[in-house]
Amino acid sequence: MNYKKRIKKVQARLRRRKIDALLVSQPENRRYLSGYKGGDHGIGETSGVLIIPASGSIHLLTDFRYQLQAEQDVPWATVHIYRKGLLKLLVDLLPELKITILGFESHYTLHSVAGKMSSTLKKKGIRLVPLTNLVEKLRIIKDEDEIELLRQSVRLNEKVFQKIFPTISGKMTEIELALAIETLMRRKGAESTSFDSIVATGKNSALPHAVPGRTKIKKNKSLTIDMGLVLNGYCSDMTRNFVPGKATEKYIRLHRLVRKAQLAGLEKIRTGVTGKEVDHAARTVIADGGYGTMFGHGLGHGVGLAVHEEPRLSPLSRKKLKAGMIVTVEPGIYLPGWGGVRLENMVVVREDGYENLNTDTTWLDI
Amino acid sequence: MNYKKRIKKVQARLRRRKIDALLVSQPENRRYLSGYKGGDHGIGETSGVLIIPASGSIHLLTDFRYQLQAEQDVPWATVHIYRKGLLKLLVDLLPELKITILGFESHYTLHSVAGKMSSTLKKKGIRLVPLTNLVEKLRIIKDEDEIELLRQSVRLNEKVFQKIFPTISGKMTEIELALAIETLMRRKGAESTSFDSIVATGKNSALPHAVPGRTKIKKNKSLTIDMGLVLNGYCSDMTRNFVPGKATEKYIRLHRLVRKAQLAGLEKIRTGVTGKEVDHAARTVIADGGYGTMFGHGLGHGVGLAVHEEPRLSPLSRKKLKAGMIVTVEPGIYLPGWGGVRLENMVVVREDGYENLNTDTTWLDI
Repeated sequence: MNYKKRIKKVQARLRRRKIDALLVSQPENRRYLSGYKGGDHGIGETSGVLIIPASGSIHLLTDFRYQLQAEQDVPWATVHIYRKGLLKLLVDLLPELKITILGFESHYTLHSVAGKMSSTLKKKGIRLVPLTNLVEKLRIIKDEDEIELLRQSVRLNEKVFQKIFPTISGKMTEIELALAIETLMRRKGAESTSFDSIVATGKNSALPHAVPGRTKIKKNKSLTIDMGLVLNGYCSDMTRNFVPGKATEKYIRLHRLVRKAQLAGLEKIRTGVTGKEVDHAARTVIADGGYGTMFGHGLGHGVGLAVHEEPRLSPLSRKKLKAGMIVTVEPGIYLPGWGGVRLENMVVVREDGYENLNTDTTWLDI
Repeated sequence: MNYKKRIKKVQARLRRRKIDALLVSQPENRRYLSGYKGGDHGIGETSGVLIIPASGSIHLLTDFRYQLQAEQDVPWATVHIYRKGLLKLLVDLLPELKITILGFESHYTLHSVAGKMSSTLKKKGIRLVPLTNLVEKLRIIKDEDEIELLRQSVRLNEKVFQKIFPTISGKMTEIELALAIETLMRRKGAESTSFDSIVATGKNSALPHAVPGRTKIKKNKSLTIDMGLVLNGYCSDMTRNFVPGKATEKYIRLHRLVRKAQLAGLEKIRTGVTGKEVDHAARTVIADGGYGTMFGHGLGHGVGLAVHEEPRLSPLSRKKLKAGMIVTVEPGIYLPGWGGVRLENMVVVREDGYENLNTDTTWLDI
């Protein structure tokens, strides 16, 4: 990855806004700009932050627990270890680096932390400037190297699914199936899952975000598997829906409707179209089929270093798609008491259309 | 769980501060006050918030995806579904509920979100008041029902460890061992892991937060296993360190030193002692043994609905321990290029001492 090029882009933006440096706390932004793989336990327990000065080389601030990782991952950065918290280190380090205007990520900094940081640094003559999505705006367009990594992540995810698919039986519970998937992901080289796998059988599949339980996989009922993994930092996300055994006519009708909606959404995708328009194309198909109120979530979301990122495909999304964006297209119909159908693929937005990253066709065109 | 009693305590605090309602966004606080089990994908993607009015019954606000879960988990709350985001719903709902002063969790609200919420609600005559750790201050003391759930979580975690322990061999990689642990956890009924398991062999065990890799478990070298699970919402967290094969004299010396430090920390624990004092007792043992600089993290942390919560046992922690707090005691020594030793148990603070929640003694007193 060309970290230096990315950093230069951030630096140009900082200079334009007359900001001396950016404090990068968002974990995927950190990895995007440096390759640092330290993992956070939620926003309250960070494995470190970057300081990107408006010019010159970058600094990685972390604690003792991540020192080796930081030095291994980013040998070209200056690594600083804080022993009494990040803020105490900043108080010493920022004046040394002659930073008096410090940008911070308002969208990934807790209100209480920003307040304390602001009042402490003010005493040292340092002003904090809230910035939003500065790095995310770079991340939203993927270069071909990134697209290739995303393709590999999608392919590995599909391989896992295809290996698991023939083993599915009514003897397994949802949890056991989810575990089999996640174990195989990691055996095959995934860093981790990109989210907790969803395995939902029968009625449970009426919950878009069902948590796998102790229910055994039901024969002749809808089964939703929504799964994704992380490979080289990049996420995949795929949903398949099918029936172990014999599908009812109702199931087949719903499945075909969802697939038709997915294809209608995909057809819309190209540079210049808004997320809203793509969502609308798919949503109209489901509404025309009589299930408009049963598709309560957005059509899709961006995927990259994060499994959910910009852009969104939703009724609220006025953002225009651009070549190099990666989105999921995942319409669904959810009928409480019966079950649900959702189908999800990941695609690259191209100038004049889209490129499907998925090649798996299991139960897609039934 | 006595949710009503907990809510009453929050309401008393709100009335005392003349705040009309509290917006609860922190997931464990949400679960503590309502039993709602919806899972968040990080702070940016919430599965809902609670509104606790200063008097009267509570409201759960979530989106379509979590509607069934919300209604199942908290049938005694009023569930509201937002379709165009939380803020739009708040704009309508708060005036209806006659809420004009709204407390929010400053320590679990993004700076950018607080800013937008504040300016939007101001136009409706609603004032936002940042609050910090109001619910956490209740959560820090566990009642006997919670202690029993934590005990069950610890016991299940130990069972998993003890079942895995005799199967460990040099043919497995760190990842395979971690997967075996996590699979067994879920087979035995855990909701999930409480954190990504650490399995670190040989030199890798010099990283306190090592990520399991493709290294095969090394014979005659230090092996760290740090594992925890979630059962009925409550977390466990345990570290064992041992040598598959024959331990060197150096290893035994280090292990005994760490164990001695752990016992010294434990001996200090009782109501009224500060976290700092407990940490110091253990740290002194390691420093006296000549490894003071090799123990770079705090001695322990609180555990409950969250795997890392208050109180901390660290050189910075001036908070006094109280009966009913639950903490880990986990000293460690980390030698880059050689490996590390860490031992961790969970204990309840009692009036005049501590109660060990762990019963496993594998390789503890060697």
